[in-house]
Amino acid sequence: MSEDFFESSDSDRSNRPLLHAESWTLPGPLSLVGGGRLEKVTVVYETYGTLNAEKSNALFICHALSGDSHVASHDENDDPGWWEMMVGKGKPIDTTRYFVICANILGGCRGTTGPEDVNPETGVSYGQDFPSISIADIVNVNHKLVCEHFGIPRLFALVGGSLGGFMALDWAIRYPDSMRANIMIATGARLSQQSRAFDVIARNAITSDPNFCGGQYYDKPVGPKKGLAIARQLGHITYLSREAMNRKSESDRKVESPFETIYPVGSYLAHQGDKFVERFDANSYCTLSKALDDYNQSQTFEMLTDEIRQSKCRWLCVSFSSDWLFIPSQTKEIVDALLAADKEVSYCNVASQAGHDGFLLKPEIDFYGQLVSAFLLNMESDSRSGAPRSGRGSARPAEKPPAVRGKNDRIDLDRIIELIPADKSILDLGCGKGELLLRLAQRGEKTLVGVELEQRYILQCVQHDLNVIHTDMDQGLQSFRDGQFDYVVLSKTLQTVRNVELVLEEMLRVGKTALVSFPNFGYHRFRTQLEMFGTAPQTDTRPGRKWFNTSDVRFLTIADFRALCNEKRYRIQKMIALDTAHQIEIPEEEANVRADIAIVTLTK
Amino acid sequence: MSEDFFESSDSDRSNRPLLHAESWTLPGPLSLVGGGRLEKVTVVYETYGTLNAEKSNALFICHALSGDSHVASHDENDDPGWWEMMVGKGKPIDTTRYFVICANILGGCRGTTGPEDVNPETGVSYGQDFPSISIADIVNVNHKLVCEHFGIPRLFALVGGSLGGFMALDWAIRYPDSMRANIMIATGARLSQQSRAFDVIARNAITSDPNFCGGQYYDKPVGPKKGLAIARQLGHITYLSREAMNRKSESDRKVESPFETIYPVGSYLAHQGDKFVERFDANSYCTLSKALDDYNQSQTFEMLTDEIRQSKCRWLCVSFSSDWLFIPSQTKEIVDALLAADKEVSYCNVASQAGHDGFLLKPEIDFYGQLVSAFLLNMESDSRSGAPRSGRGSARPAEKPPAVRGKNDRIDLDRIIELIPADKSILDLGCGKGELLLRLAQRGEKTLVGVELEQRYILQCVQHDLNVIHTDMDQGLQSFRDGQFDYVVLSKTLQTVRNVELVLEEMLRVGKTALVSFPNFGYHRFRTQLEMFGTAPQTDTRPGRKWFNTSDVRFLTIADFRALCNEKRYRIQKMIALDTAHQIEIPEEEANVRADIAIVTLTK
Repeated sequence: MSEDFFESSDSDRSNRPLLHAESWTLPGPLSLVGGGRLEKVTVVYETYGTLNAEKSNALFICHALSGDSHVASHDENDDPGWWEMMVGKGKPIDTTRYFVICANILGGCRGTTGPEDVNPETGVSYGQDFPSISIADIVNVNHKLVCEHFGIPRLFALVGGSLGGFMALDWAIRYPDSMRANIMIATGARLSQQSRAFDVIARNAITSDPNFCGGQYYDKPVGPKKGLAIARQLGHITYLSREAMNRKSESDRKVESPFETIYPVGSYLAHQGDKFVERFDANSYCTLSKALDDYNQSQTFEMLTDEIRQSKCRWLCVSFSSDWLFIPSQTKEIVDALLAADKEVSYCNVASQAGHDGFLLKPEIDFYGQLVSAFLLNMESDSRSGAPRSGRGSARPAEKPPAVRGKNDRIDLDRIIELIPADKSILDLGCGKGELLLRLAQRGEKTLVGVELEQRYILQCVQHDLNVIHTDMDQGLQSFRDGQFDYVVLSKTLQTVRNVELVLEEMLRVGKTALVSFPNFGYHRFRTQLEMFGTAPQTDTRPGRKWFNTSDVRFLTIADFRALCNEKRYRIQKMIALDTAHQIEIPEEEANVRADIAIVTLTK
Repeated sequence: MSEDFFESSDSDRSNRPLLHAESWTLPGPLSLVGGGRLEKVTVVYETYGTLNAEKSNALFICHALSGDSHVASHDENDDPGWWEMMVGKGKPIDTTRYFVICANILGGCRGTTGPEDVNPETGVSYGQDFPSISIADIVNVNHKLVCEHFGIPRLFALVGGSLGGFMALDWAIRYPDSMRANIMIATGARLSQQSRAFDVIARNAITSDPNFCGGQYYDKPVGPKKGLAIARQLGHITYLSREAMNRKSESDRKVESPFETIYPVGSYLAHQGDKFVERFDANSYCTLSKALDDYNQSQTFEMLTDEIRQSKCRWLCVSFSSDWLFIPSQTKEIVDALLAADKEVSYCNVASQAGHDGFLLKPEIDFYGQLVSAFLLNMESDSRSGAPRSGRGSARPAEKPPAVRGKNDRIDLDRIIELIPADKSILDLGCGKGELLLRLAQRGEKTLVGVELEQRYILQCVQHDLNVIHTDMDQGLQSFRDGQFDYVVLSKTLQTVRNVELVLEEMLRVGKTALVSFPNFGYHRFRTQLEMFGTAPQTDTRPGRKWFNTSDVRFLTIADFRALCNEKRYRIQKMIALDTAHQIEIPEEEANVRADIAIVTLTK
């Protein structure tokens, strides 16, 4: 049985006092977005590291529904925080470099003003009279803390996962000048209807509990513990993937609980519920989960794009493949809106079996922590403020790995680069570790985006300070709008694409010009090989690759490609045919026989 | 807004009396599998159609958790049943052909003995004193009804979906002689831990309701309606896919309910909960959901296989691609166990966006209804009893479509058939509409199984009375055990396979001999085409298929295939090389140049 049977996300955290917490009271009342008003708002927060003299190294972490300000331990004697593996000295969010702030959210129950506090008008706890708050209200309080209390004009970075991601998104849209970078993890622009349905049932369980007493249970001997525990149990299912739930249930351990524990999974859930009611308040749960349900950053994708256009930061978005609370396409919607609004963004969908919980688990942090730290390091060397930037590759810190280039096996890249005039926007499909983009960046190109399917290459691109989107081009380029780029490049990748027609069509929709290079199956050596040796030529030259394991699935000659362009009425603006073995260019009339690679610029 | 906002599965059915129901009381007490005993058990059931003189046309339907005996209307004036589209005159389960029985299950609340009934020992309702029952107990009662009351020695067919599928599985294992066919829909051999977790929370909601009164609420003014409604709301989420839930929530309709209806999805769920408490009993819900959770047909796949080996019927298993209560791999586990136990089974994973609910919806029934009716028609013409059968194709009813054969474009099939001796077991990978299998069946082969990825071909195979498994061979052949078949055939499909090494390795694991046919890229016309015309040859000869849209992704010559076999130490037992244009066989030494197709038998 696994040791961590009862451990998951923040389940084992208690209601122990926040020893290192500080507090600040807003100088005046807070007007709520929904129309209400809170006369007095106090914020309880924790900080890590040191704010530099320029106040330029502050990083704010937005916590999730049941999280709090205790994101990490402050010293060896301190309790571990909910993101202990991510935040600290030498960790991805490095407290020796950054001044980290994490504040308990408005409406919660860890010190910042919430339903449990005394309503100054009545002299008793607010309870259900606590006004409806929205994500925007939570953000407003945090923003005031940063600006008015700390006097920080602009955050170095904002980080938010899950519910925290809603805050980070709202903050970046409404206070566009207040951050340089925004990191969104396992989140979206709104909850799915399925998630809202779970929240509705959770609140029904709480308000149906006879001890709820209309929310005024604070002076009662017992609060709505059963209802709150059921709510938490339900939430907990949504945090775990199906596989993770199976693993959690491989136990015989029983807990003492007023709930059914006849099955291991019952025992597990009972434990989650029991622990939670010790540290959380039912009114806070209802207040915050309603704020979550209400959050709907723009009804349509077009509105989201318009709103996100306001933002002025660089973005890193991360999802987890098995997350079913925020499925990857929900995070991807934000990424697509950012792309449509010409913002700088990288996106990675991290392979994980853990579900939403992956956000907080070691195997996932081992990977996405590297993304986050590389992204933050890039931001340190990036003096600009979110406007299109100039050549990244030229000034990379020493800790980043150098771009790997083959000897001269990619002279096609030299020619592709020559074919692209200066000051153009470029999308590179199947960008790999970013070789072409890096060279274009070094040349000074500003608007560069890569698309790649392999997770390890996404990390390498981010480490090279490139904007890269983790997606499968064989499914289309929905992430990009019509005519978004001057050039869309597909270099030596066409032969690996299954949906050739779709990809070409999409390239010419998204780009003014498509630039395609591909191996020519009509090359005389290939012909000779088939004719003389009777073995099928391979266009995949990587070691160990043969007909049965090559990633190449399309075989075409230059003549075949011309015929397709003809059929589709694509215009071939220019074709460069290369004999890479001899490093020479082949005249057009001999290309189909003498060139092993063709580079073609296409328009519609 | 969609008309069916509030309609889903059986949600709009009321607690109206079952006008056409009859009842039967067991002649003696019922001993329960778990050790308890019920002194008196009454079964309430409905029937449709007429039992023939031989009593050979009876079809029993096992209903799901919240279903009942009213599977369909009895006449125009009758209320529609929960499976109205499936059962009736001229419908897939055709009541003009079959005598259909559907009985309310033990422990339920529709007349058959359950917790609401009076305990003869105490004179009051059982309530929570109703003994723990298992799926096996429910089956035992139904089995007695069929055998003892109706005197039916052997059912023509048994049909069960969801919870009903558990019953059908248990029944077939413990009473192997009592049915000729078994149809399992959207089910598995056990619940997932995730589903059990939902059930645990649902029961916690019921038992935490102060009106539950330890289950003795029948004489109280109000029962645990809130808890039961929450349980139903929760269950309802699991019936719908994420997409279906989105569609259900596109409404502004509000309902009167004691539950939160501030969101459309809340209103939808409140309606589901409110309707359900009118017709269902909380103790029944707990009793039946525990029986569901407890059901675990064998702990391991090996045990499941051993148990299922007892069965003596033919099987049809159906899952729905977006079902997340019973994900397709849960149904597939049963299929794999049946295959491992050499049982006759066909399996289809129906493409659906509806989730578990697809079981009851028109678009899904439009497709899987055809599978069911074809399967039942096959059973009518199948006089045997589950033992390996002889040539299906030879005696097909007229209503089945004829096998489509090209003119002479598959002479390779003739040779493959010649290469397979009589009385061998054969697996055909990528069997399409079953052309090869049908010819082998017509020749008299008994053990034939097809594997196919396209849903429409699955239906055609079932219509041809072939056993076919809906799965992707490119992911391996986990469904089959080592050495299960004498021959595993891959006819003209190797070139479409991505994982060539895996598929060949799997063929030689599962089969004693592998039989592979593939187009030879070394064929002289192909060489000439490349040499003379400079265009890449296409092995895909279907109209409109070119290099950019062919399903072929692997290009090999006979020499290439030989080299791979050599590398892997596969033994080529025989190779037939054909020039299909001239319909002649080519001698081995000229094969790589003169043959367009090679047929190879391989062993390890």
